Amino acid sequence: MFVNNTHYRTIWPNSSSRMVSIIDQTKLPFCFQIVQIDSVEKMIHAISTMQVRGAPLIGASAAYGVALAMINKVDDAYLWLAAKQLIASRPTAVNLAWAVNRMVAHLTTIAPAERLHVAWQEAAKIADEDVEQNKMIGQHGLTLIQRLHQHKTFNILTHCNAGWLATVDFGTALSPIYAAHDAGLAIHVWVDETRPRNQGASLTAWELGQHGVPHTVISDNAGGHLMQQGQVDMVIVGADRVAVNGDVCNKIGTYLKALAAYDNQIPFYAAVPSPTIDAELAHGDNIEIEERHQDEVAYMQGHTADGSVQTIRVMPAESKAANPAFDVTPARLVTGIITEKGVFTPSNLSQG
Amino acid sequence: MFVNNTHYRTIWPNSSSRMVSIIDQTKLPFCFQIVQIDSVEKMIHAISTMQVRGAPLIGASAAYGVALAMINKVDDAYLWLAAKQLIASRPTAVNLAWAVNRMVAHLTTIAPAERLHVAWQEAAKIADEDVEQNKMIGQHGLTLIQRLHQHKTFNILTHCNAGWLATVDFGTALSPIYAAHDAGLAIHVWVDETRPRNQGASLTAWELGQHGVPHTVISDNAGGHLMQQGQVDMVIVGADRVAVNGDVCNKIGTYLKALAAYDNQIPFYAAVPSPTIDAELAHGDNIEIEERHQDEVAYMQGHTADGSVQTIRVMPAESKAANPAFDVTPARLVTGIITEKGVFTPSNLSQG
Repeated sequence: MFVNNTHYRTIWPNSSSRMVSIIDQTKLPFCFQIVQIDSVEKMIHAISTMQVRGAPLIGASAAYGVALAMINKVDDAYLWLAAKQLIASRPTAVNLAWAVNRMVAHLTTIAPAERLHVAWQEAAKIADEDVEQNKMIGQHGLTLIQRLHQHKTFNILTHCNAGWLATVDFGTALSPIYAAHDAGLAIHVWVDETRPRNQGASLTAWELGQHGVPHTVISDNAGGHLMQQGQVDMVIVGADRVAVNGDVCNKIGTYLKALAAYDNQIPFYAAVPSPTIDAELAHGDNIEIEERHQDEVAYMQGHTADGSVQTIRVMPAESKAANPAFDVTPARLVTGIITEKGVFTPSNLSQG
Repeated sequence: MFVNNTHYRTIWPNSSSRMVSIIDQTKLPFCFQIVQIDSVEKMIHAISTMQVRGAPLIGASAAYGVALAMINKVDDAYLWLAAKQLIASRPTAVNLAWAVNRMVAHLTTIAPAERLHVAWQEAAKIADEDVEQNKMIGQHGLTLIQRLHQHKTFNILTHCNAGWLATVDFGTALSPIYAAHDAGLAIHVWVDETRPRNQGASLTAWELGQHGVPHTVISDNAGGHLMQQGQVDMVIVGADRVAVNGDVCNKIGTYLKALAAYDNQIPFYAAVPSPTIDAELAHGDNIEIEERHQDEVAYMQGHTADGSVQTIRVMPAESKAANPAFDVTPARLVTGIITEKGVFTPSNLSQG
């Protein structure tokens, strides 16, 4: 998508050298900074510190992580070690393991001497496939929106950032929104700020603004009330993992919005590339939920009046915080899952 | 309750002069600052800027506001004017109108020459009654907790601040918690940070900490997940207004927690002094919901590493925000209402 009228993906290989460029998303929306990643260690750091985040982008990043590892050594033992370390860099995202395992499965069929070259090709293929999938998610979602849209502004609520910044391009939850906006439909997006890391207010609002999509930031507390007041026509979120039965694991707080949507008979969709659906996972009850550092709740980062970036503590020094990063929305609250293959109800998801 | 081992109420008249002292709650938890209020205009300012906040404290503050107005003039026309201005200082809180109307009803039966003196007496009486009511709320809530408490730590989730800082003393939602803690029960409180104004993280965490009650701050998004995980035994919130049918109007986001409590069969209580129950209000659908300034969402205030208080913008400069301050939790999600008179189900509330 466009940043300052220039088209970017969120990750791209440098043509002349074995390096990858990423956008440092911890710096947004205050600073648009590109970072060069030239080792698997730096990629693991970028994933664990959320310089890259969002399940599909983590997958593509990890694939490039394997390619970067091949610069060091190409033997099987090292390949497995690098794969293990990459998979451990974020515990919840299934795309991460999916992308790494695909790389490993492919590379182990290739003679070691070819692995470096092939790894970079395969990582690029994973990235390109993500772009193509997300474009299709946008088209299927657009059809849904066109069906539900009346002759007034159509209000979509989204949580966290499942936009183009969370993918290689287009986004998942935001791909239908971009498609609808580009098709000339009058849409408006309610953007949950999404504490504690505030990816909605900092990333979703920023990328919608760059693309010119009308939007309003709200506290995470406000969505239920807006639904009661008839001000939300549809909810679309991304997901880090979807179980075969349609349980949706996504950013903490998604479950609360799904409850409110259900209570107000508002359609609730998760938009994901099909690799996010975990065929090994019968239901969401046993998903390991990442507990992140309490400082993410205790501190916030933002812009001061003089333009500098400042970090402030927003609770008493003596109090502690808990920080579960994801929750599981039961399939009974989910209207449908939008993938590149189409729109599925939870009960027919396994046929997707 | 205690602050630095000294007992304070949140509002008290100065014995020697016609002035009232308040704690400036916009400065907490970073600075404990007492402000002298010597005019009705300053009291209106204190209410509208939330130096005093919380329905019961707003009521007591407005009563003292009428007493301060009587310093200027004691005729009926001025009394009505001051009453009207005080009632308009916050649109949602029913205690405000209740306290002001009680003052007016009483003073209009009194000869003008006596009104200044009587007004201060009546305001003190309203404050004392609030303290007594909250103490009783604590006792009724304690009985509930004792009944539900098993032989392990009992986890109570609360939203916003309905603690002693929101009242003249003891609090409403936190009064049962203080009573249970003081009775030696093992309890732990999940404190919703309560964006946008963060009263949970800044006020509830601070006052629980001062009193030594174990607590953990969480993002507003986390409560549903904790309930799914069996880590919440009870929810207690305050309310700004309760309808006769049991609909609860409280800080934005309360409805989402009530939905989650209901979905997980966790008891959900609102604790209020009985004047918060609005006999004129059949149900909550028509309550006017205050829309506050978007800057409350766009900016956050906190402590920097060097100890100064800093305000930062937490969303792009180009994006706008919406800020509904309250929502209405339908009675069907409410297990009971705790008042100074006892514990009532929504359906028997009208007999309270």
